[in-house]
Amino acid sequence: MRTQVGIIGAGPAGLLLSHLLHLRGISSVVLERRSRDYVERRVRAGVLEQGTVDTLVEAGVGGRMLREGLPHHGIELRYGGAGHRVPFEKLVPGRAITVYGQQEVVKDLIAARLEAGGDIRFEVEDVALHSLEDRPYLTFGGERLDCDVIAGCDGFHGVSRPAVPEGVLTAYEREYPFAWLGILANVAPSSEELIYARNERGFALHSMRSPTVSRFYLQVPPDADVEDWPDGRVWDELKARLETVPGFTLTTGEIVEKGVTPMRSFVVEPMQYGRLYLAGDAAHIVPPTGAKGLNLAVADVRVLTEALAAYFEDGSAELLDGYSAACLKRVWRAQHFSWWMTTLLHTFDSDDAYGRRLQLSYLDYVTSSEAAATTLAENYVGYEW
Amino acid sequence: MRTQVGIIGAGPAGLLLSHLLHLRGISSVVLERRSRDYVERRVRAGVLEQGTVDTLVEAGVGGRMLREGLPHHGIELRYGGAGHRVPFEKLVPGRAITVYGQQEVVKDLIAARLEAGGDIRFEVEDVALHSLEDRPYLTFGGERLDCDVIAGCDGFHGVSRPAVPEGVLTAYEREYPFAWLGILANVAPSSEELIYARNERGFALHSMRSPTVSRFYLQVPPDADVEDWPDGRVWDELKARLETVPGFTLTTGEIVEKGVTPMRSFVVEPMQYGRLYLAGDAAHIVPPTGAKGLNLAVADVRVLTEALAAYFEDGSAELLDGYSAACLKRVWRAQHFSWWMTTLLHTFDSDDAYGRRLQLSYLDYVTSSEAAATTLAENYVGYEW
Repeated sequence: MRTQVGIIGAGPAGLLLSHLLHLRGISSVVLERRSRDYVERRVRAGVLEQGTVDTLVEAGVGGRMLREGLPHHGIELRYGGAGHRVPFEKLVPGRAITVYGQQEVVKDLIAARLEAGGDIRFEVEDVALHSLEDRPYLTFGGERLDCDVIAGCDGFHGVSRPAVPEGVLTAYEREYPFAWLGILANVAPSSEELIYARNERGFALHSMRSPTVSRFYLQVPPDADVEDWPDGRVWDELKARLETVPGFTLTTGEIVEKGVTPMRSFVVEPMQYGRLYLAGDAAHIVPPTGAKGLNLAVADVRVLTEALAAYFEDGSAELLDGYSAACLKRVWRAQHFSWWMTTLLHTFDSDDAYGRRLQLSYLDYVTSSEAAATTLAENYVGYEW
Repeated sequence: MRTQVGIIGAGPAGLLLSHLLHLRGISSVVLERRSRDYVERRVRAGVLEQGTVDTLVEAGVGGRMLREGLPHHGIELRYGGAGHRVPFEKLVPGRAITVYGQQEVVKDLIAARLEAGGDIRFEVEDVALHSLEDRPYLTFGGERLDCDVIAGCDGFHGVSRPAVPEGVLTAYEREYPFAWLGILANVAPSSEELIYARNERGFALHSMRSPTVSRFYLQVPPDADVEDWPDGRVWDELKARLETVPGFTLTTGEIVEKGVTPMRSFVVEPMQYGRLYLAGDAAHIVPPTGAKGLNLAVADVRVLTEALAAYFEDGSAELLDGYSAACLKRVWRAQHFSWWMTTLLHTFDSDDAYGRRLQLSYLDYVTSSEAAATTLAENYVGYEW
């Protein structure tokens, strides 16, 4: 079996790449370890930058997103007994975010690929990468897939990155002394916009997926176990961290999903080796505070698509050779912003009283200086260099 | 002996307070442990915010500063082989800084006080504070000075802050894993504006005091000894860290002063107890990176003067009671900015490759985003809440 681009992973990166390549007349096969049902239900990010929305619309897969997604023109920073709105319409006119679950993007992309006769193999076993320097191929479940190029879109724990010989990639990373407990609940959002709450008990985020489904996150210890978080405790803690301004009441209800997400910053450089190109979480991870993970994956795939089109259409490898360099400036900006939002809003070492005061002074500044608020807004909607 | 305000310390804070009180018809006596010659030669900060300049001019002690001080409308951030100017005239129109040595401010203030018959006692020994709750008085060298109010302007190592009973003040602090080696040299500045250089070898600052006197700083280990820094080594290291852009040559010459400054962040809250009010370094210290120490002292003294005027003129203690709260918002903003500039530009743990990449991405952002550059500029010239 043979294809132009062998894609490992049917997450947003792999599926979007396959779709964009299809639009350019380039063939691909997507190999996914999990079932279609699993990837379509996997709850992840839900905040799309303007550039991500534009990409999906231009690619013809944005119809449902435009109908069902919720455009947001601001977020709230809540701390010290008050809420402070960061108004995107004023600070970054014409740019906004769209709240639409990552798994919905995945569903839309799978539907589009299958509609167009695309080749996605679910539940494939033992995917392995071979001969990355020249004439690469993939093996899986006893089959062999010859490719011109391999795209590693299989996430942080995937097989692509470890297939690169030792010593080629440099890893940069940082861990945080906490994790996020995320829940999905069948309740109407308690606020029209996202609320990022800084609280002495820990950070909390009020988000949503639709007018009837809410998403919440709680800062928890890094070793937290969902078993220790029965529904009643989750709601009590969310109330304690979010019901801190007059007149705000949290709507509670049925919790349908609960999980612990580790908080980690990670980048490998370069994002390529031989005929292998890494995209999305396979190459870089951010803590979810800045809502950048999915958006970075889409940006990588945009760059990779142009590079592959130049390669297959004109035989030019220049863009492919420069793929990593073209991606990394955006990647590091998002790394910094995600670290910045995380340190601005989470509770760190309780012994560091100086650090807490600094954090509060920074929040007062970000919510009072137009310049400082603009730095948050322009990164949140997606900073363009 | 009796006065309305007993002032401990003849640095900029104590001297300016004495002068401003004099203009309001309020008597004071300034007690200083060192000689006049010593305090007039003590080399310290040299960057005055617009508000500091305005205060000195309005108080009638800005004549020489306006003649000899150097107005600056920008600074340079130098890293990665290039210089990037932060243009104050564009980002914060109408606001600038003035380069004028702290010891020159001290000379001007001493001259003004003595001219007006002010009472400054130099080389007084064993200053001690008594009865701070009511009818306070100071003792020194066998004498007693009864006061209505005491102003502690005697710096971080002074006697004022320790005179407050234990448990009253809360201290917030942070230390940094480096110090600054500062030198004063009889050479023309090598650049018209200040250069803040981020370098893998460590931070360096090119500053000046006049068209013929330059001031330089080098990041050094916290336990650095000036004995280990002969002039040749200082110039070699300054060249290595500053001659990193094409066409820039450092002018070297006679070094006339050399000293190591520890880097520390420190705040006590509240900045008052009973009849004692702390101002300047006695209440808070910042690392010198943001050039905020002297400016904060002047801001404290402005607030304290108004409070004392209301007290002595109208008998109202309201502003005095609110002195600390009125100062602390500015103090914490400056604390945060000083920490921010310090972490943006210094070399930290060399093992933290992730942190170095983050720092470089942040510098790229600050020098490319107008909003981010404005946050630097508006804090550097003095942020007004």
